[in-house]
Amino acid sequence: MKFRLEVTDKLSKARAGEIETDHGTIKTPIFMPVGTAGSVKAVHQRELREDINAQIILGNTYHLYLRPGLNTLEQAGGLHKFNGWDRPILTDSGGYQVYSLTEVRKIKEEGVTFRSHIDGSKHLFTPEAAIDIQRTIGADIMMAFDECTPYPCEYNYARKSMEMTHRWLKRCCERFDTTEAKYGYSQTLFPIVQGSVYKDLRMKSAEVIASFGREGNAIGGLSVGEPAEEMYAMTELVCNILPHDRPRYLMGVGTPVNILENIALGVDMFDCVMPTRNARNGMLFTRNGIINIRNEKWKNDFSPIDPESDLFSDLQYSKAYLRHLVTAKEILGAQIASIHNLHFYLWLVTQAREKIISGEFYEWKNKMIKQLSQRL
Amino acid sequence: MKFRLEVTDKLSKARAGEIETDHGTIKTPIFMPVGTAGSVKAVHQRELREDINAQIILGNTYHLYLRPGLNTLEQAGGLHKFNGWDRPILTDSGGYQVYSLTEVRKIKEEGVTFRSHIDGSKHLFTPEAAIDIQRTIGADIMMAFDECTPYPCEYNYARKSMEMTHRWLKRCCERFDTTEAKYGYSQTLFPIVQGSVYKDLRMKSAEVIASFGREGNAIGGLSVGEPAEEMYAMTELVCNILPHDRPRYLMGVGTPVNILENIALGVDMFDCVMPTRNARNGMLFTRNGIINIRNEKWKNDFSPIDPESDLFSDLQYSKAYLRHLVTAKEILGAQIASIHNLHFYLWLVTQAREKIISGEFYEWKNKMIKQLSQRL
Ligand SMILES: [Zn+2]
Ligand SMILES: [Zn+2]
Repeated sequence: MKFRLEVTDKLSKARAGEIETDHGTIKTPIFMPVGTAGSVKAVHQRELREDINAQIILGNTYHLYLRPGLNTLEQAGGLHKFNGWDRPILTDSGGYQVYSLTEVRKIKEEGVTFRSHIDGSKHLFTPEAAIDIQRTIGADIMMAFDECTPYPCEYNYARKSMEMTHRWLKRCCERFDTTEAKYGYSQTLFPIVQGSVYKDLRMKSAEVIASFGREGNAIGGLSVGEPAEEMYAMTELVCNILPHDRPRYLMGVGTPVNILENIALGVDMFDCVMPTRNARNGMLFTRNGIINIRNEKWKNDFSPIDPESDLFSDLQYSKAYLRHLVTAKEILGAQIASIHNLHFYLWLVTQAREKIISGEFYEWKNKMIKQLSQRL
Repeated sequence: MKFRLEVTDKLSKARAGEIETDHGTIKTPIFMPVGTAGSVKAVHQRELREDINAQIILGNTYHLYLRPGLNTLEQAGGLHKFNGWDRPILTDSGGYQVYSLTEVRKIKEEGVTFRSHIDGSKHLFTPEAAIDIQRTIGADIMMAFDECTPYPCEYNYARKSMEMTHRWLKRCCERFDTTEAKYGYSQTLFPIVQGSVYKDLRMKSAEVIASFGREGNAIGGLSVGEPAEEMYAMTELVCNILPHDRPRYLMGVGTPVNILENIALGVDMFDCVMPTRNARNGMLFTRNGIINIRNEKWKNDFSPIDPESDLFSDLQYSKAYLRHLVTAKEILGAQIASIHNLHFYLWLVTQAREKIISGEFYEWKNKMIKQLSQRL
C-alpha cells in the first residue's frame, strides 16, 4: 500500500490524497460502504461500482468468520473472488462485533471468548487469530485486534483497556510481519488508537500507535454514544500526533456532518452502517437535509427522490413511490433508499476532495453542515 | 389493443403473436412478472427493462387499492407514472386476493365485502367498482370481476359460482363500455372463464365468455391445487372454444413445465408469483432443472450461478456466494435469485416463441420438459 498526500487545506487540516493498493487506487477523503457479511445490504456489486462509485468496501471479520466461514473463503480464493468485488476491501478485526455480544463474551489478556449469535458455538479471538483470519479473508487493509470501550467508560478501565490494546497490537504486528499474504496481492495492517474520551489517554495512545510506524492508522472507540463535540476533540488531538504522511481512518463515523467535521480535522477514511441501516427505515440523506420518507407529507409528492442527483433511481422514482414501498415493506424500498444514501455519501466525500484541491473546502464545509442537518 | 396472430404451430396448438398497446408491443407467448403492490419484489424497474426484458408486468388491484390507494394513484396520473414502468401493465380484478381472506369476506350477488389485511377496515368490491378502480390504476389490460373457486369444489357450487361470474361479467362490460380511460391511453377488458375442473361447466363458460366478443380472454380458477393433468385438460377444452384471433391468458400459471405445456395448448399469456416468491426461498429455475441453493452441495461451488445465461448477475456471482446470501438472509440474495428466475422465465417464453416461428416448438418442448423438472 502507498499513500500520496496531494493537498493540505490552508484553513483547516483537511487533506486530499491517494491510497494505492493492488486492487486499485482510493482517492481520499473516502467513505467506505459496509458490507457486513460480504454484501452491502440491498445493493448489487454492479450498482456499487457503476452507480455509487464506491472505491473500497468493508467486510466484518466476525460475520465472515462465522458465515460463510474460513474454509469457504479460502477455497474461493478470498473475499474478492467470493463476492465478485474487485476493488479494495478493508476488514475490521472482529473485536467490535464481539464486544456487542455483552452477555456471551469474556475479555482476557489472551483474547476474547464468545458465543456465536447464530448457533451458540464457542470461539476464541486472539490478536494472532484476528490476523490469520484477515489473511484468509484477503482484505487489502486489515485492522489490529483492539478493545473498543463503551461510552461512558471509567478512566481506570479505559486506561487498562488501552494498555492491553497496545500489548495486543504488538502481538498483531508480530503475527502480521511473520506471515504472508495468501492470494498474491499485498495486505497491510492498521493499528487503532483507543483511550475513550480522555485527552491524556488519547495522546498517549496516539504516540504509541505512531511509534509502530505502520502504513496507515485508525482511530477507534468513537461514535459510540459520546457527544459530537467530544468526538471532534479526540479526533483533533489524535490527528495532531499521528504521522501526516499516512492515511487516518476514523472507524464507524458517521453522519454527513460528522464526516465533514472530521475531514476538517485531518481524517481520510470513514465507514458507517448509517447510510444503509437508516435507509431501510426510510431515512434519506440529501445535500439539503434529512428526509423521513415515511412522513405523511411525501404521500403525494411525485417529484423525483433527489432531483439534484445523477443517480438513475433518484431521478426515475418519486418520493411518493418510495414512501409507498417503505410503508408497504417492499424490498425495492430498501434497495432504492440504500443506493440513494450510499450514492450521496460518496458524492459528499468526492465533493469534499474537490473543494480541498480547489482551496474552497473550509467555506463549503461551513455552508454544507448547516444544510445537511436540516429536517425536510 | 390489437392482436396479430403470426404463426400457429403445426404439431401443437402453440401460437406466436403480437399484442399492441399504447404502452408498446408485447410479443407472445409471454410471461408477466407480478408486481403486487406496484413493485416486482426485489427488482429495480431498470433491471426489469434492460436485464430481464420484461414486456408487461402485473399489478394487484386489491393491494394497490389499499396502498397507496386510489387518491394517490389518480394524482400520480396512474400506476405507470407512479412506479416509473412505462411498458404495458395488466391488473387483476381484486377478486382473487379477496377470496383468500376466507375469514373476513362475504360473497353476495352484489359483490364481495371484506376487511383489509392492513387495518381491518371494511370494503365492498362490486363488478362496477372493479372496473372503476382499474380505470384509476390505469392498467392497459383490465380483468373482469369473477369468483375464483377453490379446489376441490363441489359441482353445484362451481356451477352457481360460474353463473354469477357470467352475470358479473355483464355488469363489468356495461360499466367498462360506458366509461372512459382516464389518462389518454386506451384500456381493454378481458373476461374470465371459470367452471372449476368440470368439463361441461368449462365448455359452457368458454362459450359464454367468447360470446362477449372482447379483445382478449382469460382462463381463471386453475393452478389452485388441482393435478397438472386436470389443468391441461381444462385449458385444452377452453382454448378450442375461445376465438383464435384473440389472446388467451391463463391466470396464475405456473412452473416452467406448466407454461410450456399450456403454450402447446394455445395459451399466449401467463403470470405467476412463483419465480419471485420461490427465489426468496432460494429456489432457482434453470434450463437444466431446479436448484435449491440452500442445499449444502452448493457451499463451495464457485461456478457462476448460471453459466449458460447472459444475465450480469448469473455470470458475476457464484452459487456458493448466492447460497451464503440466502442462508444469511441477506437482501441481495433475494435480489439475485429473483432477477435470475424472472430472466429465466422470460428467456423460456422467448425461446418458445422462436421455436414456434421456426417450426421446432413441439420437439423442443418435449426435450425441455424433461430437463426443466429435474432436481440439480
Ligand atoms: Zn456508524
Ligand atoms: Zn402461480
